[in-house]
Amino acid sequence: MKDAVIVVSGGMDSVTMLHEYRDEIGLAITFDYGSTQNAREREYAVMHCKRLGIRHLVIPLEFMHKYFKSSLLGSADDIPEGDYDDANMKSTVVPFRNGIMLAIACGIAESNGLKRVMIANHGGDHAIYPDCRPEFVDAMSAAMRNGTYEHVEVYAPYTNLTKAEIARHGAALGLDYSETYSCYKGGEKHCGKCGTCRERRQALEEAGISDPTEYETTMQ
Amino acid sequence: MKDAVIVVSGGMDSVTMLHEYRDEIGLAITFDYGSTQNAREREYAVMHCKRLGIRHLVIPLEFMHKYFKSSLLGSADDIPEGDYDDANMKSTVVPFRNGIMLAIACGIAESNGLKRVMIANHGGDHAIYPDCRPEFVDAMSAAMRNGTYEHVEVYAPYTNLTKAEIARHGAALGLDYSETYSCYKGGEKHCGKCGTCRERRQALEEAGISDPTEYETTMQ
Repeated sequence: MKDAVIVVSGGMDSVTMLHEYRDEIGLAITFDYGSTQNAREREYAVMHCKRLGIRHLVIPLEFMHKYFKSSLLGSADDIPEGDYDDANMKSTVVPFRNGIMLAIACGIAESNGLKRVMIANHGGDHAIYPDCRPEFVDAMSAAMRNGTYEHVEVYAPYTNLTKAEIARHGAALGLDYSETYSCYKGGEKHCGKCGTCRERRQALEEAGISDPTEYETTMQ
Repeated sequence: MKDAVIVVSGGMDSVTMLHEYRDEIGLAITFDYGSTQNAREREYAVMHCKRLGIRHLVIPLEFMHKYFKSSLLGSADDIPEGDYDDANMKSTVVPFRNGIMLAIACGIAESNGLKRVMIANHGGDHAIYPDCRPEFVDAMSAAMRNGTYEHVEVYAPYTNLTKAEIARHGAALGLDYSETYSCYKGGEKHCGKCGTCRERRQALEEAGISDPTEYETTMQ
């Protein structure tokens, strides 16, 4: 039954989820919060939804770029380099972004008779991003259930998977990860040095998948 | 300490809260979701924040008007008449609106070093609006606490008050309720017949306050 809305960015995780759960998804939503990374990812979100025949909305959130504090909303030079779970990655947090995306998707779900909102947060996000952790997901799901007539729920089946495990799901589905985008710097090629590029490379390597990504630099 | 963000519409309840808690409020936010009611209320939100010297942001949420199902987002003719807690008022629900406003205000609070988000839901809202009930507020507060570094919380001190009790707070503060707007139909004068006009009249009467509102019709 296609009773779910999915929040899809166009990165590895949400594109994998989109394909893995395609038979349960009635609507996909991509949020545009004004970063170049976000714009590059979005092209892949559009491509995959089109290919799978899934209705897709792009929702601009101008206020985020205007009023939120995050290096991810600045220029490429603001993005720290290092591992995805390093403490200096904290500057890339967009405060309560998942809460905001889930809340809006919940309202659209309730407006369209859909019962679940899917999001592709995973285990590797927990160190730096509080709104990716299981205790956030559980409380947000309770807020949505209690705050809607149809008792809409969050469905986040990757919450305790590693990114390498997600990549294995994708490989089993025959996904080509060159059709996804990760880099926080938002360049045409992946930089290879920011936290999310390093995480991407490590996940594909750990999953034993030949990495199709063109990086600007070799692994350090 | 001014450590709170307040969500203020310009209606009776949020304007009362704005004045009552002015010493705790560092920032006020009004959301513009595209209804005429919302536009009329907003003028009062602007006026009261200016008068109190509270920094005020207006945030447009175009997606709500575009993708959400609610008679409140349609024309005046779509608005049902009757008591505020009648079952037919259900069509005025904007799905998960409080969840969305709280989530965005939470991200802005975290971006500005503020710790609490205030909202003026009250006891009379519980019958029809699920995202005004205590169990929603508690779960949303847990989601925000778990999903932010600064453990931002919801502060909703009117949750179990009646609207008449709120009006008594306002009267004690010397508020003039003609400087607030309620009507769902969004006309220049309050219609006097929609659920929120009836609720407004009853609350002022019950609180023993002479009603300064100009209505199009007398009470039925």
